[in-house]
Amino acid sequence: MTIKLIAVYDQPDDAEAFFKHYEEVHAPLVKLTPGLQKVVLNRITADAFGGAAPYALIAEMHYPDQATFDAAMKSAENRAVGKDLMSFAKGKVKVLIAESIDP
Amino acid sequence: MTIKLIAVYDQPDDAEAFFKHYEEVHAPLVKLTPGLQKVVLNRITADAFGGAAPYALIAEMHYPDQATFDAAMKSAENRAVGKDLMSFAKGKVKVLIAESIDP
Repeated sequence: MTIKLIAVYDQPDDAEAFFKHYEEVHAPLVKLTPGLQKVVLNRITADAFGGAAPYALIAEMHYPDQATFDAAMKSAENRAVGKDLMSFAKGKVKVLIAESIDP
Repeated sequence: MTIKLIAVYDQPDDAEAFFKHYEEVHAPLVKLTPGLQKVVLNRITADAFGGAAPYALIAEMHYPDQATFDAAMKSAENRAVGKDLMSFAKGKVKVLIAESIDP
């Protein structure tokens, strides 16, 4: 089982600026988080039911176990991630914790 | 790049009944979809910002490429998945299409 932090981003006002900040500033900070196994970026291209998709991006941060995840969340690097997140996505992101299985 | 169908489930009224139906009825139907590479189930355990998490489950259905995904969506097996989905999660699920990278 993998522990994931999953960030679900609403459609931004300016998609180009959003993805530029995500890729050039936010992702490099995320990758410094201690114990992080990998990041998977799911860029939403469509709503399967039609109409506009409510989200632009779902980012998954994978951790190998609960202890590593807990330590990562308490780290200075993670505080920097949180601070940057609030600079570009405040009120427009959900951050969820999940137990992931690939049955 | 992987093409994913991502189903984001709101908190159900009855979590036990929801997960029982998902595991015993829905997941077996999903697994019959032609070309499906794998399913990853992310069971949401908490909201990182505190309070109640808005979602109970984020399910990822992975496909190796666009052509395989398109064929899967048109299949009779996928119609059965959609019909079952509406039987237990109508109005309580978002289904999104994503391009996923593991950079």
